[in-house]
Amino acid sequence: MKNLSLEKIGANAKKMATYVRELSVRAKNSALLRCADSLEINTEIILAANAKDMAAADPARGAFNDRLLLTAERISAMAEGIRKVVRQDDPTGEMLYMKTLPNGLRVGEKRVPIGVVGMIYEARPNVTTDAFALCFKTGNACVLRGSREAIHSNTQLVKILQDALAAMEHPPEIVQLIEDTSRETAREFMRLNKYIDVLIPRGGAGLISSTIENSTIPTIETGVGNCHIFVDKSADLERAVPLILNAKTQRPSVCNACEKLLVHKEVAATFLPKICTALAEKGVEIRGCAEVCAAFPGAKSATEEDWHTEFLDLIIGVKVVENLDDAIAHIGEYSSGHTDAILTENYTAANEFTERVDSAAVYVNASTRFTDGEEFGLGAEVGISTQKLHARGPMGLTALTTTKFIVLGSGQIRE
Amino acid sequence: MKNLSLEKIGANAKKMATYVRELSVRAKNSALLRCADSLEINTEIILAANAKDMAAADPARGAFNDRLLLTAERISAMAEGIRKVVRQDDPTGEMLYMKTLPNGLRVGEKRVPIGVVGMIYEARPNVTTDAFALCFKTGNACVLRGSREAIHSNTQLVKILQDALAAMEHPPEIVQLIEDTSRETAREFMRLNKYIDVLIPRGGAGLISSTIENSTIPTIETGVGNCHIFVDKSADLERAVPLILNAKTQRPSVCNACEKLLVHKEVAATFLPKICTALAEKGVEIRGCAEVCAAFPGAKSATEEDWHTEFLDLIIGVKVVENLDDAIAHIGEYSSGHTDAILTENYTAANEFTERVDSAAVYVNASTRFTDGEEFGLGAEVGISTQKLHARGPMGLTALTTTKFIVLGSGQIRE
Repeated sequence: MKNLSLEKIGANAKKMATYVRELSVRAKNSALLRCADSLEINTEIILAANAKDMAAADPARGAFNDRLLLTAERISAMAEGIRKVVRQDDPTGEMLYMKTLPNGLRVGEKRVPIGVVGMIYEARPNVTTDAFALCFKTGNACVLRGSREAIHSNTQLVKILQDALAAMEHPPEIVQLIEDTSRETAREFMRLNKYIDVLIPRGGAGLISSTIENSTIPTIETGVGNCHIFVDKSADLERAVPLILNAKTQRPSVCNACEKLLVHKEVAATFLPKICTALAEKGVEIRGCAEVCAAFPGAKSATEEDWHTEFLDLIIGVKVVENLDDAIAHIGEYSSGHTDAILTENYTAANEFTERVDSAAVYVNASTRFTDGEEFGLGAEVGISTQKLHARGPMGLTALTTTKFIVLGSGQIRE
Repeated sequence: MKNLSLEKIGANAKKMATYVRELSVRAKNSALLRCADSLEINTEIILAANAKDMAAADPARGAFNDRLLLTAERISAMAEGIRKVVRQDDPTGEMLYMKTLPNGLRVGEKRVPIGVVGMIYEARPNVTTDAFALCFKTGNACVLRGSREAIHSNTQLVKILQDALAAMEHPPEIVQLIEDTSRETAREFMRLNKYIDVLIPRGGAGLISSTIENSTIPTIETGVGNCHIFVDKSADLERAVPLILNAKTQRPSVCNACEKLLVHKEVAATFLPKICTALAEKGVEIRGCAEVCAAFPGAKSATEEDWHTEFLDLIIGVKVVENLDDAIAHIGEYSSGHTDAILTENYTAANEFTERVDSAAVYVNASTRFTDGEEFGLGAEVGISTQKLHARGPMGLTALTTTKFIVLGSGQIRE
């Protein structure tokens, strides 16, 4: 189905939404297992397609190319990801409640698929199979738009999924890929309200802001994490060191890594040399306020922009704050609203922090690295929402559902 | 605070969000009661402001002007609306659950205010006080943008609310009105992502589509209702007549009024003359398919556009359908996804209809007129969402809330 018009892809998807919505859980799971097996069976074909993408890749983009690269192991991991979705419960079909009104009407809300989910994403080809599995399991059709760099891989992956669906006697258009990777088409896609119910961008800050700017489809903003840890004066300072090292260095390139450290002035003199030394030993560059630079000569002076920046790297901003209020105010000003943590042994400080910090996840005494659907026990993750509508924080399968009111009467009319 | 820049209004609102979020339920209720009393005390002043709007109104716009007009009774109703919100439970602060992960972390979700709610609406000045009360009760600051036609009324109403808040020692900027009612300012407002968390348009189809087209802020689409009633072959035809009359004529100008009637062909010969006569006697114009026009000579022939149209008037489209599948397909094609009903005594038809019709509210054997927050027992209504993200169908106070994850640890780090 090379180069179908967006209009045609959208119309297909809308038709498919009706089809998928009515499938049983058993039918969906069988088809997903077939898709997973097909990926593994077709490993060589996928690797050949991926090799074309790799051959065209810009050698200067190391980390980017690593995300683009597929191996037999990575393909198995993609298949395993689909099998994990099979093992999760399908959230659709649940009646959330049903009550009887004074006039005898019974009114309830039922969890149902959204309909058509659009995904727009960057290099990683595993998003292609993940997104399909999550959408299909929840009874949604999906339209995928991956990046230009991964076009051969994505085209091949979607073909394998479509063939597997067809082999199970389902229409292949349940999952469709937009093969035209131009920006113009991406923008047109973002305005396909007639057919697409929700658009989820997964990728860097540029993709996300471009989606917000251009999309007329309801969108779920995902991902940017300028995460803070505040070391309160009553924190257990021994425990704080390994915790901060974990939050900063265990995987610095992800959105739940710690980017900023705030230290209560009453413990700054004791704690700053200790934590800065430990961070520096792990190769972390420290950008600090004046007090930090004075306490730790290896620190650079932080700029205003640094406080706003998600480094995604072995860099951390460190600042001394006056008190809890000052820490909360700084976080309110600079945090991206993803994850912010306090380290404290004080009951009131812990409560105040969790109440007053307005972020998707607020922590007491734990590494920020846990903000993740699987870690939180939500199963496979759709992404991490940093907006406040519909879903906030790590999104599991229920983020791909909506509700509808069911009203059962016996002839009631309104007075 | 005449003619503050949008930037300043937005910054005020963001500051106020932090303030309101931390108020106790008791403080919010006391302030709301003071606001309600102030409206009644200032009836004369409000009427004088409204008289200016009425004097400037275009006399040709009858229904529009009726919505703009305030009377002492209507002002009392606005005050009573605020008191009703006081009597409702505040949904914020509730922990929806808290569970313990294998590593001992406790993770839960808590219902919290959204932050800053933007409302953009048309003539009715009662939206001004309603929107404020709903937002304030749920711990949100709000920025209101009413129409040019109601500017004197809205300015006076907001001033009274602000004075009442100030009298209770709250900052008046908890509620702000954008006094510049130009289109350019409205568009600028729709792009104030930095400060506004959600934008809710309340008004006609033009306002709603302009908001979707221009807003970069997450938006909740409200209101358009092209609602269907399908009379199945097994329907209780005696009961169907008063029910359809109620759905069409009890209040034809509202979004949950019935706009389309689908009749199973097996009962068309019996039922069409009966229902068409009854509708015509109530002054309803009938626009029908060929079969309908043949069965009832008073019917006009319906155009393709008619099937898409929300008449909001004493007009109804009537069509004979082959069977249940045909009815569901027609609804899938033409419904606005607001409310659609089946009249049937058949168990399977009732189930199929409620499962397969993808609308915010699906009914069996009741008038469509019940799709309303108060009728559904949700309390004061924020609007009726016809989109699928965040909220769908009638929205109560919880639609003005979001959640956040609370994570309580004892030093956990990620392996």
